[in-house]
Formats: sequence, C-alpha cells, structure tokens
Amino acid sequence: MNIGVLGTGMVGRAISAKLSQSGHDVMIGTRDVDRTLAHSEPDFMGNPPFREWQQHAHVKLGTFAEAAAFGEILFNCTSGMASLAALKLAGERNLNGKILIDIANPLDFSRGMPPTLSVCNTDSLGEQIQRAFPQARVVKTLNTMNANVMVNPSLLSGDHDVFVSGNDAAAKAQVTDILKDWFGWKSVIDLGDITTARGAEMVLPLWLHLMAALKTPMFNFKVVR
Amino acid sequence: MNIGVLGTGMVGRAISAKLSQSGHDVMIGTRDVDRTLAHSEPDFMGNPPFREWQQHAHVKLGTFAEAAAFGEILFNCTSGMASLAALKLAGERNLNGKILIDIANPLDFSRGMPPTLSVCNTDSLGEQIQRAFPQARVVKTLNTMNANVMVNPSLLSGDHDVFVSGNDAAAKAQVTDILKDWFGWKSVIDLGDITTARGAEMVLPLWLHLMAALKTPMFNFKVVR
Repeated sequence: MNIGVLGTGMVGRAISAKLSQSGHDVMIGTRDVDRTLAHSEPDFMGNPPFREWQQHAHVKLGTFAEAAAFGEILFNCTSGMASLAALKLAGERNLNGKILIDIANPLDFSRGMPPTLSVCNTDSLGEQIQRAFPQARVVKTLNTMNANVMVNPSLLSGDHDVFVSGNDAAAKAQVTDILKDWFGWKSVIDLGDITTARGAEMVLPLWLHLMAALKTPMFNFKVVR
Repeated sequence: MNIGVLGTGMVGRAISAKLSQSGHDVMIGTRDVDRTLAHSEPDFMGNPPFREWQQHAHVKLGTFAEAAAFGEILFNCTSGMASLAALKLAGERNLNGKILIDIANPLDFSRGMPPTLSVCNTDSLGEQIQRAFPQARVVKTLNTMNANVMVNPSLLSGDHDVFVSGNDAAAKAQVTDILKDWFGWKSVIDLGDITTARGAEMVLPLWLHLMAALKTPMFNFKVVR
C-alpha cells in the first residue's frame, strides 16, 4: 500500500522504516525538502541526518502535500505544536476521505523542561485536527509510548496496551488491524470517540515523569484488570 | 497509630475501614458532623448513609479540625474541588510537621460528564496543597485508581503500580512502607517531587475513558518495561 508519513523526526522515521520493511511504499513529507536533505549533522536528540538515514530506509521524501497525495493512509508524525500548520500545507483535498493516524502530542517546550501541553483538559490536538479537517478520518493512537515501542511492542516484556480514539468506527477497526498486523500489537483498547484523545494526550506528563524516574524511555502502560 | 482521614466519601471510607481493620485508631473528619450523621438515604453513588456504614467500621467521626488534630498521619480524601477549603478548616497547626497523604483529584463536574480538571498542566492540586501548607509533608499517591483497589491491590490479577510524588524524601519513604505494609502494594514508583503530581492527576481523563470503555472501575495501570 502507498503510505504517507508526515514528519521526519524519530516517530516519522520509526513508522516509515517499519512500513517500508513490511513491503509498503512510503513517502515521508516535510515542510522543505531541500532543507531536510541539507542537514549534515545529527539533530539535538542524536538522530543521524535525514539523508544518511534515508539511504538505508528505502523511503521517498516529498513535501507535506506530495506525501499526503501519495498516501492511501496517512500518519501524522509531526511535532504537535506544528501539526495543524503541517496538515494545512498537506492540503485538505489530500486528506479528505483518508484515514489520518494522529500520533502527535501537543508538547510545548517554550516554558522549559518538562514540557507542558499546548492544549488539554477541555480539548485535544486530535479533536483540533478532526475539526480542522472534518472529512479526514482521524484516529488518535500510538502517542503514549516511545517510537521504538510503537513499531516493535515485543521489545518490552509481557503484554501492554495501545489506545485508539476516533469518531469513525470503520477507520478505528482498520487502524486496529494495522496496529496488530503491521506493528505486532496484541492488545488495542478503543477509548471511544475523538474527544477521548484528551485522555491519551494528557498521559504525557506522567510518561515524562516516568522516563525521568526509570531513566529509560523503554516502557509502556498495561491496563491490569 | 492514630490516623486522621478527611472526607466521608467512598475513598475516605475505604481507607478508614482498611486502617481500622488493621488495628489503627481512625477518626474521619467532615465539615459538619451533625449533617453527616443526619443522612438517612444512600448518596447519588449508592453508598449507604454514613451512620449505617459507621456502625460496622469502628471509626470515630469528628470535624476536619478534630480529625486532623487526632491523626499522627493524615489522609486527604475530600473531593478535589473542596480540598483546600477542607484543609483550611482542618487548621494549619494540625497539619504542620505531619505526613499528609493526598489522594484527591481536582475533578470539576460543573461542565457535565466527563469531568474536567480544575487545575492541571502547569500546576496540580498536590502542589496547591503543599504551597498552602508549607510545613505539611505532602505525598500525592493512590489517586490513579478506584477506592477498592487502593486498599486491596490483590483484587486485580497480576502486578500493577502505585505512584508517589512529594518533596520530602523521608515522608515518601514512610508512605511507601504504608502502601506496602498496610495496603498490600508490591510496586511503588517514586515519580519525583510534588510537581510530578501533575502527571498523576492528569491521568484521570484516561482513567475515566477506560472506565467507560471497559465498563468497570476495577483496573489499574502497570508500567511494563
């Protein structure tokens, strides 16, 4: 399948590499292709320059609009504060009718560390995206864990959970299959409509506290009954 | 040990009954003793009237101030929107130097269901309480689960976690012992200082979504590594 992945950071790369390895045709979208390719140094997180990474990953690079037009299914892996602007550049026409898997978190680093959320409690980024693009079939998922765990849940010991939120039941069912069949998830919990993205996004502060306390990002939540 | 428990709701009752069964002397604090004893009908959650419950629970009832003066260790089990007012009535002098285990969540039901949080993201109820009573040794814990699970974690299958947040390392260590020895917790995760109460409180929206999705409040989070 042709997949469009918006965002060239850790999450976009992890998703793209996994899908490409599984035989899908992936185009990553970025704001400025030349600028993305011009980077020659690792980023502040220590990730290699995009060009170096791309040589091994077998994925195409295009603008946000090109990647959105290319993909039959789209992943929003942009940073949450920039997601709405990136999706506008992607173009509403390129989103309409498509499943848009929203992995972004509205983390605001402008107040220092740890980041706060730029939207929460009475609204969420997932809802903002669904309101801005009412014909896109937005499903919020995978935002509650590290990028490596997203695409390889068996890196952790035992079972653990991923959540889905969205208004379109058929889209959520298809995303659930994608999570299971493409990424290897065993337990997918349907939280409800897109307003439940509030809960999934508001778990980020706890996630960040846990990363500091446990001194690793390699963990995830399991809902024990 | 003499324990003061502020709040006569589900959480206050669960904590008090467990401590009383374990041989501690418990006084529950309420705003208006006569009014609490006058109730003759179950509350909106179906809990029996306090007077009926108290006959089996072997706990004393007093004002917030009397319970706070009585307890060597205090539990804040009031509803989060009323906690600061209740603690003012308890009296700063009765809190100073004591461990104050804060279980409350700042749930605001005024916008309808599901509730929002009256404080979050850049502040938390735990921090508000610590700022208002700087000599109290505030430890936020147990707020991320149902009252029955708080005092009987073995009701759920397998391991799961409880978090502690606070500025006073000795107080957190003592609360960790209380959680393990009195309540039966096996895994207590220290999130850090009292600002990490933000993360613990902001998990409530996800908890509420999960309760609706799973159709039960009997679950808890496990951090899988």
